[in-house]
Amino acid sequence: MALDRGGWAMPRRSAARLKCSSSATATTYSSSRVSSRSIPSGYRCMPEASWLLPQACWSTGNRSGGVPQPRGCDIPRRRPKQTTMGSYAMSSDERQVQEILAHYVRAADQRNGKAQGSLFTDDATVQIYAKGGSGGYRPVGEPLVGGPAVRYATENFMAPHPEGGASHHTTSDHLIEVDGDRAHINAQFIVFRIRAAARPADGWPEGTFGAQGTVTPIESGYYDTDLRHIDGVWKIVHHRVLLDMPLVLPGA
Amino acid sequence: MALDRGGWAMPRRSAARLKCSSSATATTYSSSRVSSRSIPSGYRCMPEASWLLPQACWSTGNRSGGVPQPRGCDIPRRRPKQTTMGSYAMSSDERQVQEILAHYVRAADQRNGKAQGSLFTDDATVQIYAKGGSGGYRPVGEPLVGGPAVRYATENFMAPHPEGGASHHTTSDHLIEVDGDRAHINAQFIVFRIRAAARPADGWPEGTFGAQGTVTPIESGYYDTDLRHIDGVWKIVHHRVLLDMPLVLPGA
Amino acid sequence: MALDRGGWAMPRRSAARLKCSSSATATTYSSSRVSSRSIPSGYRCMPEASWLLPQACWSTGNRSGGVPQPRGCDIPRRRPKQTTMGSYAMSSDERQVQEILAHYVRAADQRNGKAQGSLFTDDATVQIYAKGGSGGYRPVGEPLVGGPAVRYATENFMAPHPEGGASHHTTSDHLIEVDGDRAHINAQFIVFRIRAAARPADGWPEGTFGAQGTVTPIESGYYDTDLRHIDGVWKIVHHRVLLDMPLVLPGA
Repeated sequence: MALDRGGWAMPRRSAARLKCSSSATATTYSSSRVSSRSIPSGYRCMPEASWLLPQACWSTGNRSGGVPQPRGCDIPRRRPKQTTMGSYAMSSDERQVQEILAHYVRAADQRNGKAQGSLFTDDATVQIYAKGGSGGYRPVGEPLVGGPAVRYATENFMAPHPEGGASHHTTSDHLIEVDGDRAHINAQFIVFRIRAAARPADGWPEGTFGAQGTVTPIESGYYDTDLRHIDGVWKIVHHRVLLDMPLVLPGA
Repeated sequence: MALDRGGWAMPRRSAARLKCSSSATATTYSSSRVSSRSIPSGYRCMPEASWLLPQACWSTGNRSGGVPQPRGCDIPRRRPKQTTMGSYAMSSDERQVQEILAHYVRAADQRNGKAQGSLFTDDATVQIYAKGGSGGYRPVGEPLVGGPAVRYATENFMAPHPEGGASHHTTSDHLIEVDGDRAHINAQFIVFRIRAAARPADGWPEGTFGAQGTVTPIESGYYDTDLRHIDGVWKIVHHRVLLDMPLVLPGA
Repeated sequence: MALDRGGWAMPRRSAARLKCSSSATATTYSSSRVSSRSIPSGYRCMPEASWLLPQACWSTGNRSGGVPQPRGCDIPRRRPKQTTMGSYAMSSDERQVQEILAHYVRAADQRNGKAQGSLFTDDATVQIYAKGGSGGYRPVGEPLVGGPAVRYATENFMAPHPEGGASHHTTSDHLIEVDGDRAHINAQFIVFRIRAAARPADGWPEGTFGAQGTVTPIESGYYDTDLRHIDGVWKIVHHRVLLDMPLVLPGA
């Protein structure tokens, strides 16, 4: 979805072919912009490990039609720094860094590849680590490299939400260090899987009351992320997803 | 409860009549201060959609007697701005805006109508949107208008916690924009329902160990909120609750 | 574990004896550094109430061997204050206070007594309160007094994670007040228990996909904490854990 928007060179036909199927079989691809270096060969339809949901893959997109879209998946622009006396209150570097992660989780939940990719530099690395039974972290596969690869992975390797489905990647208890044009953020994350109940064809039963659906925590861990301030914007240069549990990928 | 405190014109008798009953039947009301404009006619006993719990409605209040009350439901006052050299460290506008939401969730969890209403301007609007099966948001009912209506709804339409019950509306990953005396905040929310286990009449069984009760996530979505800085305090002027799932109200 | 590191006077043998056993029977202890005043006599193997997990107690430690450790359990040092023009962006007092809690939850989750104890002054008090059936908070046992006691309790009275186990103490919706060298923070907390699934001896079954394990919210409440700025660092002087549910301790 949206692969042909925003300057992607890949033809629509090819893009469609590259999307992972609902049977989660392996896919391969090539592209002048997503080089074989930037996404490891053999990369394939993946479940969501903090950003890859364990379901069949991308098909129709999940744009919620209609009224008010939750804001937050736009590309964050750094507001000009001004003193607190100006019309714009000065946003601290810590807040700006924290908001990058706030954009990240929304882009992941909304499968917005363009917004997600824009948060990363062209040579950024993204690596998932999973805890084994013995407690140590081990890398899962090889790192993604660069914003375009992140965009591609978000659009093609992240499982789409089923009808009525959604997710919330939530972060908390941030530790943020800013040193000039470099920053580091460590955060806890919990991923919740949302499944709205479907309205029965003959309406809700007598006595039905309140929110209808389930909210289930399914993944947890830490994000450990390095950023750089480039051309007035904070960008992610290294993003580590430290998952508390094993991650099983088909064919891996 | 507390309807006759804080200057409410409504007589206690009338107030009592207007509270929604445990069978969650429709109630109507009129009041010189809560005009028919500010709460839509036909508004009735509601479940908690981010702030209305799916249970029978207000009866005795839920004041936790005794020792240390969690602070946070008082009316927030804006501290005088000073530099970081002063005895009060300067709290950024972003933090002040975020704390309004922190007060909001505590007031919702504690069913504190006075504290909740005080966060809103007299012409503020509150609108709940719920996702349908197709993914789009649709408004649920008509908006509440004004702090007094919010107070009234909190006190009368929010389901009371049962004995041993509590809730936590939690927010995360805030995106905050401040532009002079206007601000916007977008946040993810997850609502947890707490049910403390009751101590058996003959004491806990041998081997019982640890916290006794359940913590269950039941609702999720986004808050999307506009604020204005008025007389030294940030107040909510538009509050949108974007619920991830359908919301079923009796008689709706 | 680690009782003999970092200057603890207690001999290894004695320390081992004092650790609570997996049958969670009562232990008593004495120590020149952890005086009978600082940990109430009769204090014993405790479940985790926001920081004490309801399981058998400390045995082997839970150091995740190998690669990237989630940062955050080091002793936080206050960075020198500089203007935003300097190489270090100025971190607000509010953020510094909030990060103390961020260190606290990581130290609790990682059973890092040294890091945990370092967050408290030598005369700090820690008191757990639990809600009874009637809604009021009641103190659970007597307060811990002082950083060394907090360290000791973290290392000896907190239940170790089983193989594949972890936890996340998460906080949200902070209300922070800073007044010179004194600060107060109130936060909601939710504790999640993590249990990674064990890889079957003959590998994951065909079709296994995604993160393998469970994430379960088990405890909730409020932290209500006073801090003081001492020698350039914020330290906790009073820490109250307001638990939403009864807490049952063996022999209590």
